[in-house]
Amino acid sequence: MLEELKQQVCEANLLLPKYGLVTFTWGNVSAIDREKGLVVIKPSGVPYEGMTADDMVVVDLESGKVVEGKYKPSSDTPTHLELYKAFDIGGIVHTHSRWATSFAQAGKGIIPMGTTHADYFYGEIPCTRAMTPEEIAGEYEKETGTVIIEAFKGLDATQIPAVLVKSHGPFTWGKDAAEAVHNAVVLEEAAFMNFHAMMLNPEIGHMQQELLDKHFLRKHGKNAYYGQN
Amino acid sequence: MLEELKQQVCEANLLLPKYGLVTFTWGNVSAIDREKGLVVIKPSGVPYEGMTADDMVVVDLESGKVVEGKYKPSSDTPTHLELYKAFDIGGIVHTHSRWATSFAQAGKGIIPMGTTHADYFYGEIPCTRAMTPEEIAGEYEKETGTVIIEAFKGLDATQIPAVLVKSHGPFTWGKDAAEAVHNAVVLEEAAFMNFHAMMLNPEIGHMQQELLDKHFLRKHGKNAYYGQN
Amino acid sequence: MLEELKQQVCEANLLLPKYGLVTFTWGNVSAIDREKGLVVIKPSGVPYEGMTADDMVVVDLESGKVVEGKYKPSSDTPTHLELYKAFDIGGIVHTHSRWATSFAQAGKGIIPMGTTHADYFYGEIPCTRAMTPEEIAGEYEKETGTVIIEAFKGLDATQIPAVLVKSHGPFTWGKDAAEAVHNAVVLEEAAFMNFHAMMLNPEIGHMQQELLDKHFLRKHGKNAYYGQN
Amino acid sequence: MLEELKQQVCEANLLLPKYGLVTFTWGNVSAIDREKGLVVIKPSGVPYEGMTADDMVVVDLESGKVVEGKYKPSSDTPTHLELYKAFDIGGIVHTHSRWATSFAQAGKGIIPMGTTHADYFYGEIPCTRAMTPEEIAGEYEKETGTVIIEAFKGLDATQIPAVLVKSHGPFTWGKDAAEAVHNAVVLEEAAFMNFHAMMLNPEIGHMQQELLDKHFLRKHGKNAYYGQN
Repeated sequence: MLEELKQQVCEANLLLPKYGLVTFTWGNVSAIDREKGLVVIKPSGVPYEGMTADDMVVVDLESGKVVEGKYKPSSDTPTHLELYKAFDIGGIVHTHSRWATSFAQAGKGIIPMGTTHADYFYGEIPCTRAMTPEEIAGEYEKETGTVIIEAFKGLDATQIPAVLVKSHGPFTWGKDAAEAVHNAVVLEEAAFMNFHAMMLNPEIGHMQQELLDKHFLRKHGKNAYYGQN
Repeated sequence: MLEELKQQVCEANLLLPKYGLVTFTWGNVSAIDREKGLVVIKPSGVPYEGMTADDMVVVDLESGKVVEGKYKPSSDTPTHLELYKAFDIGGIVHTHSRWATSFAQAGKGIIPMGTTHADYFYGEIPCTRAMTPEEIAGEYEKETGTVIIEAFKGLDATQIPAVLVKSHGPFTWGKDAAEAVHNAVVLEEAAFMNFHAMMLNPEIGHMQQELLDKHFLRKHGKNAYYGQN
Repeated sequence: MLEELKQQVCEANLLLPKYGLVTFTWGNVSAIDREKGLVVIKPSGVPYEGMTADDMVVVDLESGKVVEGKYKPSSDTPTHLELYKAFDIGGIVHTHSRWATSFAQAGKGIIPMGTTHADYFYGEIPCTRAMTPEEIAGEYEKETGTVIIEAFKGLDATQIPAVLVKSHGPFTWGKDAAEAVHNAVVLEEAAFMNFHAMMLNPEIGHMQQELLDKHFLRKHGKNAYYGQN
Repeated sequence: MLEELKQQVCEANLLLPKYGLVTFTWGNVSAIDREKGLVVIKPSGVPYEGMTADDMVVVDLESGKVVEGKYKPSSDTPTHLELYKAFDIGGIVHTHSRWATSFAQAGKGIIPMGTTHADYFYGEIPCTRAMTPEEIAGEYEKETGTVIIEAFKGLDATQIPAVLVKSHGPFTWGKDAAEAVHNAVVLEEAAFMNFHAMMLNPEIGHMQQELLDKHFLRKHGKNAYYGQN
């Protein structure tokens, strides 16, 4: 079942080591079939080398139960499911990529400082609050979804397709698995530049609003004119 | 038409990923045929992999209209045209390369601190002022050219073949497309070293003027003696 | 003798250049056969390129004498032997990897700031005190073992499988040579992120205790649920 | 003439791009035949790709005149000659390698902070004073040699085989061309670690003298015991 989606999710997972975003078995990509209410996700702790579409795991969006697959799904699956329920998105990536995770560990969001950021993220990439302990909040991986959703109160997750989970690392998303990976790569670039700009000029704040508008909107929305349509 | 120039521009564009200056479809290189008043430039949002000379777009310098090409030209084309009109140069590169863009985001020029810089750039690489909003300045990409030209008031663009556009990134240029890419690579080296020298010694200012003169002039101008002529 | 262990140790040594943890002949990996009381270790100052299992040296745990091998063992062998005597571990790695060594040179431990760290190290990776001079402490390489063991007073070396030797560099360990290398790679990631988080937010301290517990324990111990068992 | 030395110098030059120490045609390696009083050096501004032993240039140590070669020698040749006259060394390397050059631009020497440094450099790698202008000091490239030699007053250049030329970059040397390149690689490692240790702990000063002695002397001199003799 879902052979094409499994293929897409597998290929997107394999882009993570290709772009230098993961080490060992870290990181995971998923995508959703909204009609069927099913999510395809990477198995837990399985090496990227030699991974095939057939290794992907199919999980039910509502119950979280495995519907198909020879492996256990990623331990972060409950977080992915929360995000699919809350946001109008088609694919999700989680990594511990070096630069974005450094911001997550510092507990700092990534504010827009340049057009690289503005081309993809329409505002600050927020950093979540700390977790509520499991005894109070219940299942940890679900709580990770909850703190992300809280961080997007008043924000449009389709216009800012990334978040930093405090003391943990980034999640990014997009209309499908490939776009979610694309955004994970851009996030790493933005984090790198943000870090060094802050070191060079600690007073530097948000970029000009007009420039942020211009760059985001020339690539997104109905008046976009970047690319070949 | 302009087959040789298209080939040069295509090859120069392909050097951007080779030297690690771009991600995805970011960045663009152009070159000009001054006699014909035509500019050859990379198409907008097209991947580098598999790109051929035939994909390049020919644009009229004065009108900005596409004269030949199966694709839309780079969205940054109006900026390139402004620079060709203002400066005596043959090729232009735009990237979001990591180190130079960090300075652009910090709103800081790159002052000459060492001979690596002095071998190629005869003075500070300036950072532009912020953009004037489009409602006042008109077309954004043209305004990008305007702020660059303003930053070179009193400077010789052929002796300082690079600029940082505030909150955006670098443009570099040269006598042709290949030299413009060469300068983009050197800019990245200079930015890296400048950053770390500033972290090590925040008091460090401009290098000795005599050393700047010596290194620039032993490589450029009529008394140059570096290389095999 | 010990052909299988030699093969494992050789392969683990070859992972060091593969993961970018060593330059030239730097670094060394060993493993122990507890039943026989023998340690297999890399020879001293021999290049990684072309290294085979047959080049490994077998050393007696108690006496430190070479039992088999055509080469002299790593000059760090006495340090390895001290650690095998003190800790319940199967393999040891020593490198001068760039990020971890920077912390060692700064004389600072790596405190847990994120889940990357927590997934592998259950608390701060300690930095040792300075060496006692050889005239007082005796053999230098043995003293290196002594200061490491001192740094683990009150700590469980199997739960924090890494240490920074002051002004020197890291040692990591694990149940075998491969796991020790794995931990050396993770240590480098943790050091990178720790460094940048500290630059971004000098006030940032230890991560939430609950999050540290959660991540370490979901990967280790009897209630672990990460991976395919 | 000097076919073997030319081969060694050519191979050593080719190691510079291999180890990531140079960009484009930057950098140069030379070696000396003391008996004949001749120095073999890389030609000026010639690409590394396709370079052969036959491209090397032979220069007279005393007169600085080209004795053989189809190309002009490196523009830095007079600096190399000064160093050969002053120091008992067999090979010299000059690069603009990123980390060491950052220190040179900051005008700061690299003090010994760890055993990586101590294994190769027996004390601080000094940074020279600024150049005396050419009108006063005479030929610039010779003056570069002069300021280096001044920086080694009271120091043993064979025990500290590296220097940083202020606002310029490093020179390293050794008993032959290969060892000079080896030291250039180690210098880059030491500079990287020194930089980050200083950021982590600005108070950190010189490492323990006993540890510096121990590591330098276990690799050098008559009581050395590192390696296979």
